[in-house]
Amino acid sequence: MSQSSILDQLAAVIESRKAVNGGDPATSYVAKLFAKGDDAILKKIGEEATETVMAAKDARVSGDASDLIYECADLWFHSLVMLAQYNLHPQQVLDELARREGISGIVEKASRPE
Amino acid sequence: MSQSSILDQLAAVIESRKAVNGGDPATSYVAKLFAKGDDAILKKIGEEATETVMAAKDARVSGDASDLIYECADLWFHSLVMLAQYNLHPQQVLDELARREGISGIVEKASRPE
Amino acid sequence: MSQSSILDQLAAVIESRKAVNGGDPATSYVAKLFAKGDDAILKKIGEEATETVMAAKDARVSGDASDLIYECADLWFHSLVMLAQYNLHPQQVLDELARREGISGIVEKASRPE
Amino acid sequence: MSQSSILDQLAAVIESRKAVNGGDPATSYVAKLFAKGDDAILKKIGEEATETVMAAKDARVSGDASDLIYECADLWFHSLVMLAQYNLHPQQVLDELARREGISGIVEKASRPE
Repeated sequence: MSQSSILDQLAAVIESRKAVNGGDPATSYVAKLFAKGDDAILKKIGEEATETVMAAKDARVSGDASDLIYECADLWFHSLVMLAQYNLHPQQVLDELARREGISGIVEKASRPE
Repeated sequence: MSQSSILDQLAAVIESRKAVNGGDPATSYVAKLFAKGDDAILKKIGEEATETVMAAKDARVSGDASDLIYECADLWFHSLVMLAQYNLHPQQVLDELARREGISGIVEKASRPE
Repeated sequence: MSQSSILDQLAAVIESRKAVNGGDPATSYVAKLFAKGDDAILKKIGEEATETVMAAKDARVSGDASDLIYECADLWFHSLVMLAQYNLHPQQVLDELARREGISGIVEKASRPE
Repeated sequence: MSQSSILDQLAAVIESRKAVNGGDPATSYVAKLFAKGDDAILKKIGEEATETVMAAKDARVSGDASDLIYECADLWFHSLVMLAQYNLHPQQVLDELARREGISGIVEKASRPE
């Protein structure tokens, strides 16, 4: 599955967990976060960032980066929940990344016919 | 450009900024981060997470989410630098997200012939 | 009660919650944190820092800083738990603050007989 | 010097760095933070919390907690700058800590005549 599909699919699943879309806080973790509101979601950003940093520190000692991948996934996942809470889509973040890095240009140039 | 291309391209650009690949701290922000090492990069994760939270708070007051998109892009960008520092690739994070959310299964089902 | 008494008393109460001192995770929040170990305590530092930042943002909108005081107290409290976990005492942090700020000198001068 | 004196003295020094009190961003780090405003100060809370967590992780590997004391001092110091920015005083945080922990009561009892 392409990266696009993963982020888009995740965004769609998260969107479906909103109360307005029938998400149920009793059965869904994401629906529970939405029910709690902004601060509960933003607090997770700080929490998951801290856990990512701790996992990175541990990875240097253990030589095993699997927890770091896991915690970074948690950080990105809660970023997606935050974006949904603000009615934003991950593509907008990726577009900003592409814009500032001038990647569009690089890619455009790279894909030019020779 | 697909999301896949953006993250892959960014990861490639970041990788090229490592000293071993000729990255120059005098001209590249990312090369400078690599030169400083783990803690400088991890500190940025905490810093950008905090800025993301502040931008989200501001967005509720201003009604404008453009700074939130910008700061979330910063958070993801520095996550990519961190992953590179640990010789990891964003695809590994996306695979973890797909795995835990059972998205592979969802997609598999969705793409089944009727 | 003086500031000294407050921090010292808190440090003493926290110390008493260690398992080795009879702290019981079933009845004490701090004992539970100690039972969970380093990462659970450090995660709280990141979490409370984020909540402090959010409360500061809210205070500008509401004009009421009581939540900010509350969250800053939470941040300092969990700092004390962390210090205890590492067998450190808040006085060592205060001594460092005094040292770097050269306050000892300022006070010494201020208290000199005229 | 008592803990009270240290926090009070620090709060006084920080207060003197406000522009309205003659603080000069060209010569004072704290005056520069005040000149930048809320977000620059709050960002430091997130940053110093992350550095504290990293120092705690390092302390377990090195067996040396001196950096942890240093980073915790940084975190508390920037908390004091934040409190000043919101026209609050560290004593209000300590009062909250005393209130919630019921320390006033403990001390009251301890200081009763026998």
